[in-house]
Amino acid sequence: MAEVDVAIVGAGLAGLTAARRLIRAGRRVTVLEARNRVGGRVLSVPTDDGPVVECGAEFVGPTQNRILALADEFEVATARTFDTGRNVYHRGGKLRRYHAAGPLGPIPPDIGAVEAAAAMLTLNRMARAMPVGAPWRHRHARRLDAQSVQEWINKRSFTPGARFLLSVAMSAALSAHPAEVSLLYWLNYIAAAGDENHPGTVQRLASTTGGAQESVLVGGAQRIPDAMAAELGERVRLGVAVRAVEQAGDTATVVADQLTVRARRVVVAMSPALSSTIVFTPTLPAARLQLAQRMPMGSVGKALAVYARPFWRARGLTGQAVSDQGPVDVTFDGTPPDTTAGVLVGFVSAEHMRRLDGADEDLVRAECLGSFVRYFGAAAATPTAFVLQRWDREQWSRGGPTGIAGPGTLSTLGPALREPCGLTHWAGAETADYWTGYMDGAVRSGERVADEVDAALG
Amino acid sequence: MAEVDVAIVGAGLAGLTAARRLIRAGRRVTVLEARNRVGGRVLSVPTDDGPVVECGAEFVGPTQNRILALADEFEVATARTFDTGRNVYHRGGKLRRYHAAGPLGPIPPDIGAVEAAAAMLTLNRMARAMPVGAPWRHRHARRLDAQSVQEWINKRSFTPGARFLLSVAMSAALSAHPAEVSLLYWLNYIAAAGDENHPGTVQRLASTTGGAQESVLVGGAQRIPDAMAAELGERVRLGVAVRAVEQAGDTATVVADQLTVRARRVVVAMSPALSSTIVFTPTLPAARLQLAQRMPMGSVGKALAVYARPFWRARGLTGQAVSDQGPVDVTFDGTPPDTTAGVLVGFVSAEHMRRLDGADEDLVRAECLGSFVRYFGAAAATPTAFVLQRWDREQWSRGGPTGIAGPGTLSTLGPALREPCGLTHWAGAETADYWTGYMDGAVRSGERVADEVDAALG
Repeated sequence: MAEVDVAIVGAGLAGLTAARRLIRAGRRVTVLEARNRVGGRVLSVPTDDGPVVECGAEFVGPTQNRILALADEFEVATARTFDTGRNVYHRGGKLRRYHAAGPLGPIPPDIGAVEAAAAMLTLNRMARAMPVGAPWRHRHARRLDAQSVQEWINKRSFTPGARFLLSVAMSAALSAHPAEVSLLYWLNYIAAAGDENHPGTVQRLASTTGGAQESVLVGGAQRIPDAMAAELGERVRLGVAVRAVEQAGDTATVVADQLTVRARRVVVAMSPALSSTIVFTPTLPAARLQLAQRMPMGSVGKALAVYARPFWRARGLTGQAVSDQGPVDVTFDGTPPDTTAGVLVGFVSAEHMRRLDGADEDLVRAECLGSFVRYFGAAAATPTAFVLQRWDREQWSRGGPTGIAGPGTLSTLGPALREPCGLTHWAGAETADYWTGYMDGAVRSGERVADEVDAALG
Repeated sequence: MAEVDVAIVGAGLAGLTAARRLIRAGRRVTVLEARNRVGGRVLSVPTDDGPVVECGAEFVGPTQNRILALADEFEVATARTFDTGRNVYHRGGKLRRYHAAGPLGPIPPDIGAVEAAAAMLTLNRMARAMPVGAPWRHRHARRLDAQSVQEWINKRSFTPGARFLLSVAMSAALSAHPAEVSLLYWLNYIAAAGDENHPGTVQRLASTTGGAQESVLVGGAQRIPDAMAAELGERVRLGVAVRAVEQAGDTATVVADQLTVRARRVVVAMSPALSSTIVFTPTLPAARLQLAQRMPMGSVGKALAVYARPFWRARGLTGQAVSDQGPVDVTFDGTPPDTTAGVLVGFVSAEHMRRLDGADEDLVRAECLGSFVRYFGAAAATPTAFVLQRWDREQWSRGGPTGIAGPGTLSTLGPALREPCGLTHWAGAETADYWTGYMDGAVRSGERVADEVDAALG
């Protein structure tokens, strides 16, 4: 039985950040990770004779200061996401190409675009009134939390185009249907898309240049958790799934299948949904048990198609598309900076992913490539490599990109997100103030929890 | 390592029913139960020098044929719930007493009562079109599942009284806020409040005479699971929390902390939310992993106050109350048939329970008794015994009375409720066709899964 000051459950960015910071504070730390790799929802995979593709978190952008600082520290360069040319907008079977630098910015030229733009300004204004990271403290938290995003959209917009644009702005970020998501949660998510000096906006969530998809990490986002894990060395234990946390007096015993660790504090650096798999003695407070049942992960797949070159660029296209048909409903150009190959990145969100759940792998591939062909032409049909990463099938993620909350959850149970329970503290992107659901939020949550635990240890 | 035909996880009514039926079919069975008792959400507790009180599932009524058959088999008598006299209706700080046998039946005499009654008829009519137990097969499943019950109530009713009456009809049954619950789910729940010959209605859910609260089981509901467990003998293993199910070829290995069982089939007789605590190898299909994150248990507490006698009866009161103030928001007369004592049964639902989560035990007791005093008079202030059962604090229930589904869940993921995954089959009241969320549904699910497994074993 190992003895440490802090046992950290989960070797994603949150857990690894917490571990490094606690070690610098002079604490003895062990990180227990169920998978045989570090990184959690970050996963860069080399393709045969091709580039590394990002199967998980990929992009970074302005105001994501904490992940950018880490990249800097580990000398992982950033490179701009290609976005020169026209985007593709595909709705109701019709396809249009448009310049995102137009007067409505990234909003496609639908007949509902002006209405959608006005509604987005309203969302931004409402988000500015949000106590970032603590939406339950909003004066009208109960009222905002009693409605879904779908309900708000239906009340606020009348053209089908506007309704679609407002829906996709949310579903592209959360990979969930707007009927599943509380308005309070979504407003906080928007508010969190910034930093202390830059209030969050829908536009920053949705954009490449100036937004959350502005840049990629050269060589793969995975380089960062890998570098952190290398520094932590033997302190990171892989393939160790934690089963139970038993607290007695000043000591917590963390029981994994192959290992038991005794610690003065425990950090659970997992999504609330995944934290449900751990059995706590004594039982966690009701609010925490209830919250963990009410923040499901989105249903998301990521389709990555590798080509000899980024052929769409020659056709004046950015590689960005939005569609109401799917299965790939949002795309980006994920070509590596050295352009030794072209990469299309496609998200398969929410009901599109669910519809294909039991489908044959060849069919799913064909359908995803069909989406790429529709948006970018016949050349998309024959990639040199194709990867579909199903986050909703991952035992140790159970979905992605993040934990979402339906109506009635955060206004009543939100404080349980971060409130320590005895010797147990909580981290993970879902607990972040800024950039909840992003790599930056994960890092922020790791920093916050490390300071919290260090102070608690005295 | 024990070897059996079927390993059943969970010794509630569903698991015990499945076990008995499989044994009668000649199968070797083991039932693994995490708690040190059987019964799950059934829990009858003797009070000091007083009667047994029902801390969990309590009532049975017409069309609940399967639990009534079990009661019959084990010679557990039923007795009518007392409901002679006037009910209490408390809203906006005002209290009224009324006869439930009036023209609106159980609907209180609010200014919104006629509007609520009309809306309930609409709900009943919509429920009749529901494929009971398979709401995802409804022709308009997507549309009905895109809205919450709250949204439907807001659209359909205008008087605050009607909105309250429609809300409480749902929250009394589910212990959840109507904004958390999908309309599709609620319509199916209503449809399920009947049997093959009697379509479900809101009234049957809400009523004593003629409804789900018509009778109690004399001596306590617990007598039934206890009798079943006695018959099963050594086949029921208590204190055995299952950690993992590993499937390889024709064999499933069920790993608990102190025990490993090898079986040809596994029955998980737990709510979907609780099933999340088990790690499956190979990983479960995405739809099942996603569903299990999206059927949280309601937040419910049950307050039981024991008095020398049922003093409210002498005042012409039934012991039934409905209130918008709480913390006890719905009450019944739970006096044992021999009237050796009087018992008031109070439900503390949803946000009322959440508000009191961290509160001091004495304060909670005082607040609950304050509710009883408000409804039934000063004599309620001094019970001889008081029990508050917090289901939302139970590690092995995580809430009650049942798993609920928010918008967007059942229309896309519903089939995963019962669809077997490899060698694993699913039971529990949430998987029932009729009386989902009730003892009767639990028994039905156990019978269904036993037949399913027996057929699969060949």
